[in-house]
Amino acid sequence: MNTNYQLYQKHLKKISDIGFAAAVLQWDQETYMPPKGAALRAQQLATLSGLVHEHFTDEKLGKLLDELIKDTSLSDKEFKNVMHTHKDYYKQKKYSTGFVEEISRTVSETFQAWHQAKINNDFKSYAPFLDKLLTLKKKECELLGYENHPYDAMLDQYEPGAKSAHLKILFNDVKANLVEFVKQIAQKPQNADAFMFAEYDEQKQWDFSLYLLKQMGYDFEAGRQDKSSHPFTTHFNAHDVRVTTRVNKNDLNEIIWSTIHEGGHALYEQGLPITEYGLPSGEYISLGIHESQSRLWENNIGRSLAYWEYNFPKLQELFPQNLGDKTALDFYKAMNIVKPSFIRTNADELTYHFHILIRFEIEMALFEEKLAVNELPELWNAKYKEYLGIDVPNDTKGVLQDVHWSHGSFGYFPTYSLGSFYAAQFMHTATQQISNLEEKIKAGNLMPLLEWLRINIHQYGKQYLADELCQKISGEKLNFNYFMTYAKEKYSFLYNL
Amino acid sequence: MNTNYQLYQKHLKKISDIGFAAAVLQWDQETYMPPKGAALRAQQLATLSGLVHEHFTDEKLGKLLDELIKDTSLSDKEFKNVMHTHKDYYKQKKYSTGFVEEISRTVSETFQAWHQAKINNDFKSYAPFLDKLLTLKKKECELLGYENHPYDAMLDQYEPGAKSAHLKILFNDVKANLVEFVKQIAQKPQNADAFMFAEYDEQKQWDFSLYLLKQMGYDFEAGRQDKSSHPFTTHFNAHDVRVTTRVNKNDLNEIIWSTIHEGGHALYEQGLPITEYGLPSGEYISLGIHESQSRLWENNIGRSLAYWEYNFPKLQELFPQNLGDKTALDFYKAMNIVKPSFIRTNADELTYHFHILIRFEIEMALFEEKLAVNELPELWNAKYKEYLGIDVPNDTKGVLQDVHWSHGSFGYFPTYSLGSFYAAQFMHTATQQISNLEEKIKAGNLMPLLEWLRINIHQYGKQYLADELCQKISGEKLNFNYFMTYAKEKYSFLYNL
Repeated sequence: MNTNYQLYQKHLKKISDIGFAAAVLQWDQETYMPPKGAALRAQQLATLSGLVHEHFTDEKLGKLLDELIKDTSLSDKEFKNVMHTHKDYYKQKKYSTGFVEEISRTVSETFQAWHQAKINNDFKSYAPFLDKLLTLKKKECELLGYENHPYDAMLDQYEPGAKSAHLKILFNDVKANLVEFVKQIAQKPQNADAFMFAEYDEQKQWDFSLYLLKQMGYDFEAGRQDKSSHPFTTHFNAHDVRVTTRVNKNDLNEIIWSTIHEGGHALYEQGLPITEYGLPSGEYISLGIHESQSRLWENNIGRSLAYWEYNFPKLQELFPQNLGDKTALDFYKAMNIVKPSFIRTNADELTYHFHILIRFEIEMALFEEKLAVNELPELWNAKYKEYLGIDVPNDTKGVLQDVHWSHGSFGYFPTYSLGSFYAAQFMHTATQQISNLEEKIKAGNLMPLLEWLRINIHQYGKQYLADELCQKISGEKLNFNYFMTYAKEKYSFLYNL
Repeated sequence: MNTNYQLYQKHLKKISDIGFAAAVLQWDQETYMPPKGAALRAQQLATLSGLVHEHFTDEKLGKLLDELIKDTSLSDKEFKNVMHTHKDYYKQKKYSTGFVEEISRTVSETFQAWHQAKINNDFKSYAPFLDKLLTLKKKECELLGYENHPYDAMLDQYEPGAKSAHLKILFNDVKANLVEFVKQIAQKPQNADAFMFAEYDEQKQWDFSLYLLKQMGYDFEAGRQDKSSHPFTTHFNAHDVRVTTRVNKNDLNEIIWSTIHEGGHALYEQGLPITEYGLPSGEYISLGIHESQSRLWENNIGRSLAYWEYNFPKLQELFPQNLGDKTALDFYKAMNIVKPSFIRTNADELTYHFHILIRFEIEMALFEEKLAVNELPELWNAKYKEYLGIDVPNDTKGVLQDVHWSHGSFGYFPTYSLGSFYAAQFMHTATQQISNLEEKIKAGNLMPLLEWLRINIHQYGKQYLADELCQKISGEKLNFNYFMTYAKEKYSFLYNL
C-alpha cells in the first residue's frame, strides 16, 4: 500500500482515538458521572477537543492530503476518503483561532441566555444574544463559501451536498400535500389511547425494551443500553455502540419508541465497517441518512401493524391488567394518533414535519435577511396557526422550545425531515426487493430487513453522498411522494378516510 | 502570580486532562464496556498515553522548569511542586524512545507468557521472558541512577524516597517478631467462621456495602460504586472518585472488606485539594501512603470490635437466618482468622506480610545478582516453608500467582506492607489526638477520624514525602513496633495468648 496513504490513515486514526475518547467521557457524563464531577469533566472535554482540532489542522496532514489528492494510484475508495478529508481540512483551515473562540464564547453566552429565557418566558432578554450569534453564523457562511445561497454553507455541515433550492421544493411538497391531508384526519373521530398512560411496571418496561433491541439484531456484545434523561446513541467504534433510553411509569410510549429509534441509529453504527475505523469510509454519510435509519425502524417498522401482530402478545403477557382486553389493532391505533401540538419532540409522525417546515422557512428568512430576530415570535406563532391550526400560548412553548439555534446549529432541523423521507423511499425499495417482507415482520423475523440495510447502506460508510446513495438504492433522487404515499395509505386506514 | 508558574500549571493540567480521560476509558473497560469494544479501546488508550508522554517530555516544559527551579519568588508549595515535576521530567528524559518501546514490547510478551504459564503450571516456559525483562529493568536502574543500591531506583517509582537499606531493617523486624507471634497463634484452637460462607442475598450485600461507604463519609455526589471482577479505586479529579467491588453469594467477607478497603483509598482521593488539580500538591504521596489509607479503614477500623458493635446489629437485621444467633464478638473472631496460606491476596492481616517479605527478599536477591531466574521456584518454596510453614503444591499457586513481575513492577510489593505499617503508626497518633475515638466508633461516628485524616494527611497532597509526613504526624519515622503492638494486643485477645 501507498506510504502516504498509510501515513494519512495513521493520522486520522489517531484523531479518531482522541475524539472517541471524548465520546466515552460524554457518554459517562450523561449516564453515570456523579454530579460534582461535571466541572472538571468539562475542562477535560475541552482539552480533548482542542487536541482533535490541533491534529486535524496540522500542516503535515495538509501536505499529505495535497499530494494524495493528485495521486492516481489510489483505489476509488481511497480516493474518496482523501477527497472528504481534503475538503474538511481546508474548511477547518478557513477558521482563524480568534473566530473559533468568538463563536465558542457567543454560543456559550447564548445558551445561558436561552436557558434563562425559556424558564422566564422572556424572549426579549434572549434576542440580542441570538442576534449576535446569527451575525457570526452569517459571517461563517461567507468564510466557508457557497455557490447559490449562504444557507447552503450551513446545511453542508450536517448534510453534505444538500442545497436549499432542493429543500424548498421538498418543503413546498409538504405544504401542498401533508397540510391538507392532516386537515382531513382532524375531521375524523380520534382513536383511543388512554390505556397507554396507565401504570406500567418500570422493570418490565426495561426488560421489554431489551427484548425489542435483540429482536432488531442489535449486538449486545458490541453495545449496551443504559438510562439517561434524554435518549441518545453514541459510538466509540463499530464494536462499541451504545444506546440510552428513559422509562416513564405512566407512559408506555416513551421507552418503546425511543428504544427502537436509538436502536435504528445504533444498527447503522454497528454495521459500519470496523476495518475503516477513523476514515470517511467507516463513518456515517450525513445526519439525514442517520435519521433515516432511526426513523425507518421507529416509524415504518415500530409503528406498523405487522410488527405488533408479533410483539403485542408478548407485551400483553407482561401487562395483562392494562392490555388484557386490547388487540394489536387497538395498540396500533393508539400509537399512531395524529394531533397538532406545540412541541416538536412530542409530535406525531405526520405533524412533526410542520414543525420542521416552520423552522426551515424561518431559518431561510433569517439568512436571506428578510426577517429580524425580534420579529421571530410573531412569525413563529403565525406559522403555527397557519400550518397546525393552533394558537401558541407563550414563547416557552413556542419559539424558545428548542436548543438548536442557541448552539448555533442552523441548518440542522431539515435533516430530521430528510430522515423520514429517505426512510419512506428506502422502505419502498426494500419491500420490493425482499420477498414477503411484511409476512416476515409478522413472524417476528427482522433479519432480512437488517441484512438489506447492511448491504445497501451500512457497509459503504461515506463512500456515497446521501443523494448518490438514494439514487443507487431506489433509482431516483429523494422524492417526497414516497413519504406521502406511505402516509396516505397508513393513515387512511387508521382514520377511515 | 508568576507567569512562568501559570504556564507550568496550565501545561500540567492539560497533561492531567489527557491522563484522566484515559482513566475514564479504563474505568469503563472494567465496568460497562461490551466485550467486542476491547480491541479498539486498547488502541485509544495507547494513543492517549502516547500524548501524555509527548506533552510531559516537551522541551518547552523543560525550559520552564529549569527557570522555575531557580525562581526565588515561588511560595514553598509552588517550589515543591516544581521540584517534583523537575525530577520527574528529567527522569522521563532519560528514556530513549527505543528503550521505552523495548520495555513495552517485552512486558507485553512476558505478560502473555505468564498468563499461559500460570494456566499450565509451567514456570520453565516463562523463565526466559522474565529473565529478559529483568535484564531490561536492571538496565533501567542504571539509566535512572541511584546512590547505594540499584533496587532503590525501582522503589522510587512507587515510593519516592524509599531506600532498600531501610526496608531491610523493616522486614528483618517482621521476621524477628511476626513470624514468632504467628507460630504462637498456630498452637491455639482456631476460631469459627463457617457462617461467613453461608448463602447471603446479593442485593442485600450490595445495599449494606453502600451503607458502609456512606458511614465512612464517602461522598456519593463525588463518586459511585460499581461492580467489577477485581475491586479497584480510580479518580478523574477529587470530585469524581469511583470504587468498584464484587459480591460473592457464598462469602460475606468479599464485599465487606473490599468495599471498606477501596473506600479508604477513595476517601484519600476525595480529600485531596481540588484546587491543586493536576499538580503534585493535588496528588497522593506514594503507593505506601495510599495503601495506609485503605488498610487503616479495612483493618484498623473495619476489622475492629468497636466498629462491629455498632454495625453488626444492622447486618444481623438483614440476614437474621445466618446471623441471628451470632454476636458482634463471634463476627469479630470470624473476620480475623489467622492461618498461613499460599495465596497473597487471600491472606489474613498478619501472614500477609510474610508473602511480601518473601517477595522483597527475592527481588533484592535478583537485583543483587545473587539469584538467577531459573532458581526462583526453589527459593520461593523454601521461603514459604520457612516463614509460613507450608508446602507450596505447585508453581501456579506459588511463584506464578502474581502478575506484578510480568508487568515489570519490581519494587511494588513492599508498598503493601508499608501501607499496613504506616496505618498502625497513624492510628496510634489518631487515638491519642481524638478524644474517646473508640467510643465514637462504637457509636457509629466515624467523622472525627475522617476529619483527622483530612487535616493530617489528605489536604497536603504531595507536599511531604512519606517519611516527612510520618515524622510530622507521629514525631518519628516509620517504626514497625506500632504494627507489632497493634497485632499483639488484638490477636492476643482473639487467640487467648
